[in-house]
Amino acid sequence: MADKDDGGAAMQTLIIVSHPDIDGSTSQAFLRATAALEPHTEWVHLDGLEPAARHQLWSRVQAADRIIFQFPLYWYGAPASLWAWLDDEWTDHQVSAARAGELRGKALGLVVTTGHPSAAFRVGGSENVTLDQLMVPFWSLARKAAMVPLPALYINDFAHQSDAARAQTYIQYRQLLSMPHPGAPAELAAWFAQRARALGDELTATELTDRDDELAQLRGVVGDLRRGDDD
Amino acid sequence: MADKDDGGAAMQTLIIVSHPDIDGSTSQAFLRATAALEPHTEWVHLDGLEPAARHQLWSRVQAADRIIFQFPLYWYGAPASLWAWLDDEWTDHQVSAARAGELRGKALGLVVTTGHPSAAFRVGGSENVTLDQLMVPFWSLARKAAMVPLPALYINDFAHQSDAARAQTYIQYRQLLSMPHPGAPAELAAWFAQRARALGDELTATELTDRDDELAQLRGVVGDLRRGDDD
Repeated sequence: MADKDDGGAAMQTLIIVSHPDIDGSTSQAFLRATAALEPHTEWVHLDGLEPAARHQLWSRVQAADRIIFQFPLYWYGAPASLWAWLDDEWTDHQVSAARAGELRGKALGLVVTTGHPSAAFRVGGSENVTLDQLMVPFWSLARKAAMVPLPALYINDFAHQSDAARAQTYIQYRQLLSMPHPGAPAELAAWFAQRARALGDELTATELTDRDDELAQLRGVVGDLRRGDDD
Repeated sequence: MADKDDGGAAMQTLIIVSHPDIDGSTSQAFLRATAALEPHTEWVHLDGLEPAARHQLWSRVQAADRIIFQFPLYWYGAPASLWAWLDDEWTDHQVSAARAGELRGKALGLVVTTGHPSAAFRVGGSENVTLDQLMVPFWSLARKAAMVPLPALYINDFAHQSDAARAQTYIQYRQLLSMPHPGAPAELAAWFAQRARALGDELTATELTDRDDELAQLRGVVGDLRRGDDD
């Protein structure tokens, strides 16, 4: 499923965002603007859904090839809205690879924002735990469902990221949404070449990040939104 | 705080239960009946609280020396009601040991029920993950708050536990609620001796579990409640 685009039909990516205060989040504004540049990508804000739409979301999960759980780290886990949706709408019958297997072969990605610098999340760091450790429940869920885990994208202290770091986040996020195997070295050159062709020019990867008009626009958006305290 | 009973005043234990279907749970009925035998122990069902009472629960946290989070494992984590309460009512100011430090020195315990046998929760087991791994977010929260972690009590497949296994769970739970350092070998003899004195008899630990009238009553309760499929 994750490789469906290899066969011709475009891979469908569903981004499920859990965030109780999304309007106050500059990182989510940045990610939403970035996701809007990717075709075949759908953005759903869980907290903003009516109960009926929340219930119907499962059909969009079924239609997707790649599912992204995206949220700020709240007390070392996901916000309650993601757990509530899983508790209420994900059934053992649907998830279990041994039963309906409705998720089998779909890809699962995580995009987690935190208010701490990267150095906090390691043994001996101020949080003394890694984000990979904290995300074990979601990888266990993926395993149960026979889903394919994607490399997690952790965005730490976005409010204080340099423009260069944000450019890196921008590229990693677009790759997570669209590459058959995000971050795979063998595919990186092809991915950049395809983006360069789309811009009608021949560019190296470095030049691409420098010249990309879309990125310049995003930087403007972020500059407007920048504030001292982010999720 | 956790040792307050050493100084004379009784240690106060607050059990916070997150369970969307508590009336259908035989393990929670068993635990509630057991907890009722322990003095200085308060039982709160999060899902059953009105919003105002849910908000006021923080004051009971402040008054307690020992806090127990008790819940069934739902999709490899706690049910949404526990996360929602933490998201809504626990603030960084209250939790941070560097700020108000309102939780500093209080003990935190976890009681987690699962529908799988113990053997499932290990590398190579059907769940391929340990419960200690899945509970890392809560131990990280305890660390942030400078709370004292207690040994976790994991109750696997209660519906199919033998009476002997339930007697063991009964004792471990009472110890978790009441011992200064639950499970500490140096305190076990004193704990059993005190319980024996309370029964007006001199009993060995083994005899105590055999003769304890309260346990016999509990077995009756459980027999009535037993059903094939539990949380």
